[in-house]
Amino acid sequence: MRIALLGGTGDIGKGLALRWGHDTDHDIILGSRDPEKARAAADEYQETLADHGVETKITGFVNEMAADRADVAVLAVPAYHLTDTVEAVADKLDDTVLVTPAVGMKRDDDGFHYNPPPAGSVSALAADAAPEGVPVVGAFHNLAAAGLTDLDTEFDWDTPVFGDDDSAKATVMELAAEIEGLRPLDVGGLANASEVEALTPLLINLASENEGLHDLGVKFW
Amino acid sequence: MRIALLGGTGDIGKGLALRWGHDTDHDIILGSRDPEKARAAADEYQETLADHGVETKITGFVNEMAADRADVAVLAVPAYHLTDTVEAVADKLDDTVLVTPAVGMKRDDDGFHYNPPPAGSVSALAADAAPEGVPVVGAFHNLAAAGLTDLDTEFDWDTPVFGDDDSAKATVMELAAEIEGLRPLDVGGLANASEVEALTPLLINLASENEGLHDLGVKFW
Repeated sequence: MRIALLGGTGDIGKGLALRWGHDTDHDIILGSRDPEKARAAADEYQETLADHGVETKITGFVNEMAADRADVAVLAVPAYHLTDTVEAVADKLDDTVLVTPAVGMKRDDDGFHYNPPPAGSVSALAADAAPEGVPVVGAFHNLAAAGLTDLDTEFDWDTPVFGDDDSAKATVMELAAEIEGLRPLDVGGLANASEVEALTPLLINLASENEGLHDLGVKFW
Repeated sequence: MRIALLGGTGDIGKGLALRWGHDTDHDIILGSRDPEKARAAADEYQETLADHGVETKITGFVNEMAADRADVAVLAVPAYHLTDTVEAVADKLDDTVLVTPAVGMKRDDDGFHYNPPPAGSVSALAADAAPEGVPVVGAFHNLAAAGLTDLDTEFDWDTPVFGDDDSAKATVMELAAEIEGLRPLDVGGLANASEVEALTPLLINLASENEGLHDLGVKFW
């Protein structure tokens, strides 16, 4: 499968690229608004993987071209760049599954707080921006970037996955399950997005308030 | 320590009463609007504990009298009874720590959703209702009632604890840590309540959507 990581030069894009590069044979395509940046990151991730004994080709393109080549495109961009990223790649999304891991947060003296857009959730915002017929699936919201991006870190985390298109959701759950230490859990449709997105500021607050806890993920049992 | 469980005839009150009765030497006082119901539940929990080899005295009173006897009073009532419960016991709360585990949820065809009151969180509602100077601590939101109330169920769960009074929060964290299998985690002040409360509908949705998962708690790592 061809997986594009739009905004793949950021933390979550880097982490998913490295993990899928390491644990699977999928084609990894990095996207960025700046194609030079995408190519440089692709080279860097390839070297990191080679250092871990994995020879694989990662390519880098401007977001539009990355999306054009992909079966699944992950919107690995901050929430405030979600709409313009979707709009930029909109006419390249034939038969592409869009994945949104983004969370809207604000910070004050008390900590981080969930700050959903008027659409109700960041995922709903992505679905509103997506062209008709392009399925949007939410996943990978609650992963600690520092752990995800460091291939020497082992984890045992869950990632709730939601979406209104069952087939697209199943595809993303399979991709998630292929990452070692990651268990996808079905959490229904897009209407259930906000409780998943709200978990991310909670993880950050827990990590900052409790000594010895950092780079937290979550396990449900 | 004397712990009152106001609304102690419901699931969360029963679970905490049984667990503290089983795992600690604290005095457990059940409260209810109906003192007869409180006394009957107290007898029932005492018998359950005796069946598990623990001889302890649990007493039952109308909520006001239970609160009057307590160092810590847990508001183990549904969110829509929180304000009237606090108001009913308000003049009995001298030096009492109030604990709120309540969550506001609504349900539709998609699942359960976090439904905070206009105060921003159920915990903020409790703090607004509490008399001045009475500290409010949030805890025990994300525990599966079926597991908590069954003494034969072992669990390994976290419970985020928050509050603006550090001493009251520390007291509640100690009480939580005394329950076997429960790890309290500090998550700052009352301003961080809603992300904790929102976790409960997520747990319910995950349990309903994933075969083999039920009565879910959460672990952060």
